[in-house]
Amino acid sequence: MEHILNMLPLSEAWREEFRRVAAGHTQIFAPAGIAEDGAPLPVEVYENATVILGNPPVEALKRNRVLRFLQTRSAGMEQYEAPGVLPEGAEVHNAVGAYGHSVSEHMFAMLLSLMKRLPDYRDRQRGGGWEDLGEVKSLLDARVLCVGTGDLGSSFARQCKALGAKTAGVRREAGKGAEGIDAMYPIGELDALLPQADVVALMLPHNAGTNRLMDRRRLLLMKPDAILLNGGRGTAVDCQALADVLAEGHLWGAALDVTEPEPLPPEHPLWQQERAILTPHTAGGDHLSDTPGRIARIAIGNLKRFLER
Amino acid sequence: MEHILNMLPLSEAWREEFRRVAAGHTQIFAPAGIAEDGAPLPVEVYENATVILGNPPVEALKRNRVLRFLQTRSAGMEQYEAPGVLPEGAEVHNAVGAYGHSVSEHMFAMLLSLMKRLPDYRDRQRGGGWEDLGEVKSLLDARVLCVGTGDLGSSFARQCKALGAKTAGVRREAGKGAEGIDAMYPIGELDALLPQADVVALMLPHNAGTNRLMDRRRLLLMKPDAILLNGGRGTAVDCQALADVLAEGHLWGAALDVTEPEPLPPEHPLWQQERAILTPHTAGGDHLSDTPGRIARIAIGNLKRFLER
Repeated sequence: MEHILNMLPLSEAWREEFRRVAAGHTQIFAPAGIAEDGAPLPVEVYENATVILGNPPVEALKRNRVLRFLQTRSAGMEQYEAPGVLPEGAEVHNAVGAYGHSVSEHMFAMLLSLMKRLPDYRDRQRGGGWEDLGEVKSLLDARVLCVGTGDLGSSFARQCKALGAKTAGVRREAGKGAEGIDAMYPIGELDALLPQADVVALMLPHNAGTNRLMDRRRLLLMKPDAILLNGGRGTAVDCQALADVLAEGHLWGAALDVTEPEPLPPEHPLWQQERAILTPHTAGGDHLSDTPGRIARIAIGNLKRFLER
Repeated sequence: MEHILNMLPLSEAWREEFRRVAAGHTQIFAPAGIAEDGAPLPVEVYENATVILGNPPVEALKRNRVLRFLQTRSAGMEQYEAPGVLPEGAEVHNAVGAYGHSVSEHMFAMLLSLMKRLPDYRDRQRGGGWEDLGEVKSLLDARVLCVGTGDLGSSFARQCKALGAKTAGVRREAGKGAEGIDAMYPIGELDALLPQADVVALMLPHNAGTNRLMDRRRLLLMKPDAILLNGGRGTAVDCQALADVLAEGHLWGAALDVTEPEPLPPEHPLWQQERAILTPHTAGGDHLSDTPGRIARIAIGNLKRFLER
């Protein structure tokens, strides 16, 4: 019998589903770690659960030596994959599929906003100026390079293609295609691809191979009027180097939903850079009303398969 | 023999094409009304041309009683359709097809920007605030109503559908479908459709039937959290009424590339309205580098058909 701690935000209909799937096991519902009585969960609940759905505090998990299954409500799960956090053999699932459309649509909105100079027009709006700011860019025939081609990268690529862009992707296993990606390349070809792209969109998990992937050298390999997007993990871009090259006049613009560090300190030069736009890691999360339902659907599928084994 | 006045901005290759198509006729090249010697065209040239490609001054045209063919470089041509401007029987063509992608992509950028609260995030950027502004909207399953379903409306609808929206359209002849529009209705159904739409996108030419179509009454028929876009002619929206309903808290937001009047006066309340975004009639025009080529392609086709008759 499993001891399930279910921390997902669920409608009553979804709770009923989880009760049905987990019949014969114990299950405590505590959305975001708040118990039924409104108090924070006692630490013993974290320590004794064999199954956890949601994002428990890492410190509480470290004392749990019986956990066999963790389903996060987030796309990332690197905090749980660090050595010593989970008991050996525990399986971990993320909820990246719940965020693909949400995050990619946010990145797409930031891209089009930069292409059409909407941030510049916004800055001048209060002044009442009917001023033409000149040339804009289009996705029609633009070359979009997707760095990371999982659920998110594939979704973003499909959106760009729908507006007439040509898409290329890089991933570790280049033999494996992805929907929306016209041409796939191994990550080793990145330096050769960067100078050809009008848009470089980073949608990577954090790991040793992606840390500061876009450093000053690679930023300078991009076309002088290209656009950089980061919607994966902030660590993929050296934010100081990006602020520097933008200040030097390189790139049409950059849009970041994620930064390193987070929050980006108020004194960081990117905040004042006209050609940069920033959102505070809000592309995913609970910003769309249908996301909790998408997470629940992923979680119940994984839980069912685990319990049936 | 026709006397052709060609005011289009053309590359040498395109001029060669126009010379070839109009072999046996006279043709004066004067981009935007500037003659080869750099001086403005003499009025006689406007008065004696039987064919004009481009947008001649209306006053000069009024004295031309021999014109048989006019191809504008603009999407609109209402200034030439006013009584007394063109000689009877003269045919007029616009270049709306050259702007469909450009204008629709601009409107699409404004729509996504509003949905993701990017103008709000921009307003706060200089303050260095890593502040989550809460709920956003998505095109996935959104109901988009396209008012006007010509080249522009159809292009916009296709873009919305690519991100998962459901599209409806209204046009004068509802029996005629348009690519990208799931369901077409006659314009008389507008009042019944407005309360169902998450997005209302106006892409209409100016005429008596479209003047102030979106008045206070119809704006209030829209859902309280819907989005209004105008990318056609400014006269389709009562801008004062729009400023009023936004100030009253109605609508998620509004994005206008066109206004009535233009320029919108600096003291107009829409400039200061946080939930409105404005661009100064720049969605079309020459803001994309490939537009002149698209206009030339449309113009040469129409000219060829005219000369071959």
